[in-house]
Amino acid sequence: MKKFMETTTQSETIYDGRIVKVQVDDVMLPDGKTSKRELIKHAGAVGIIPVTKANKIVFVEQFRKPLEKSLVEIPAGKLEKGEEPSVTALRELEEETGYTVNTPRFITSFYTSPGFADEMMYLYLAEDLEPVDYPAAGDEDEFIEILELTLDEAKQYVREQRIHDAKTNYAILYLETLERM
Amino acid sequence: MKKFMETTTQSETIYDGRIVKVQVDDVMLPDGKTSKRELIKHAGAVGIIPVTKANKIVFVEQFRKPLEKSLVEIPAGKLEKGEEPSVTALRELEEETGYTVNTPRFITSFYTSPGFADEMMYLYLAEDLEPVDYPAAGDEDEFIEILELTLDEAKQYVREQRIHDAKTNYAILYLETLERM
Repeated sequence: MKKFMETTTQSETIYDGRIVKVQVDDVMLPDGKTSKRELIKHAGAVGIIPVTKANKIVFVEQFRKPLEKSLVEIPAGKLEKGEEPSVTALRELEEETGYTVNTPRFITSFYTSPGFADEMMYLYLAEDLEPVDYPAAGDEDEFIEILELTLDEAKQYVREQRIHDAKTNYAILYLETLERM
Repeated sequence: MKKFMETTTQSETIYDGRIVKVQVDDVMLPDGKTSKRELIKHAGAVGIIPVTKANKIVFVEQFRKPLEKSLVEIPAGKLEKGEEPSVTALRELEEETGYTVNTPRFITSFYTSPGFADEMMYLYLAEDLEPVDYPAAGDEDEFIEILELTLDEAKQYVREQRIHDAKTNYAILYLETLERM
């Protein structure tokens, strides 16, 4: 580990927003030379793979401003400060789909873009969903539509690139491996 | 699609760096209310899954400043302007591992973090690797170490979170599904 180490000599916060903090660090490289690193700080996020008792996967479609188009994704949300990822997962599942489960099952976690961002994604599986009578309201500026798809339908969405993001593509591949076992 | 649409009313560039451009847009939501969107613009990237003739997977370990630690990842790199992803894939494979192939096979693509970034990741499989006699030099500020692992060893790295990023976790899961077919 030490041989790769980059030492920070100066750090400047460029922007401190609601979702991201942007920071530019001056670093000393292992060979003594210097470079700059652009860093996006993010609180981390959860994604939930919700599977109904009828074996359908619940997705949400929403507009993604960075892409200027809508995507079909598994429900997801940003971690609140100090919040356990499994708590975030349950909250987002209920807010976005109107379903709940007793215990979401942790599958894996990964950094989404380790070259420039520290965002960690925690993935959960939520099986045997139960409808919530009075689901909590989601974020005021979030407009979503719910879709329930079979795994085959979801794979077709991947081919059509209507499903086209890391956590959701991973989720589909994960469900495929479950089917084969 | 239209029902989700967010209309940009103003756009401000906060930072224009070497890797990312940071932009904050004022948007009008579908219900007529307004909000702000923080957007990270990125040129896109490729990841290559290199598999040797001895059926080992070639990884690179490098320090990731946003995480302040090193990760073991499949070789990857940023798209140069106007560059075909398959060309980037071959270049990065050669620079980072000293191997090459005739034709890298496209597997899939996905947005890494569609909530705040437009980075697209293109994934390729490179089988039957051939060593390059005089590999091209990589980036001056990149210090990497090469590891050749079996799939089982790589899965152990995932469990230990030494492999811990979206493209590499996806790659391991993908290779697992190939093994079962």
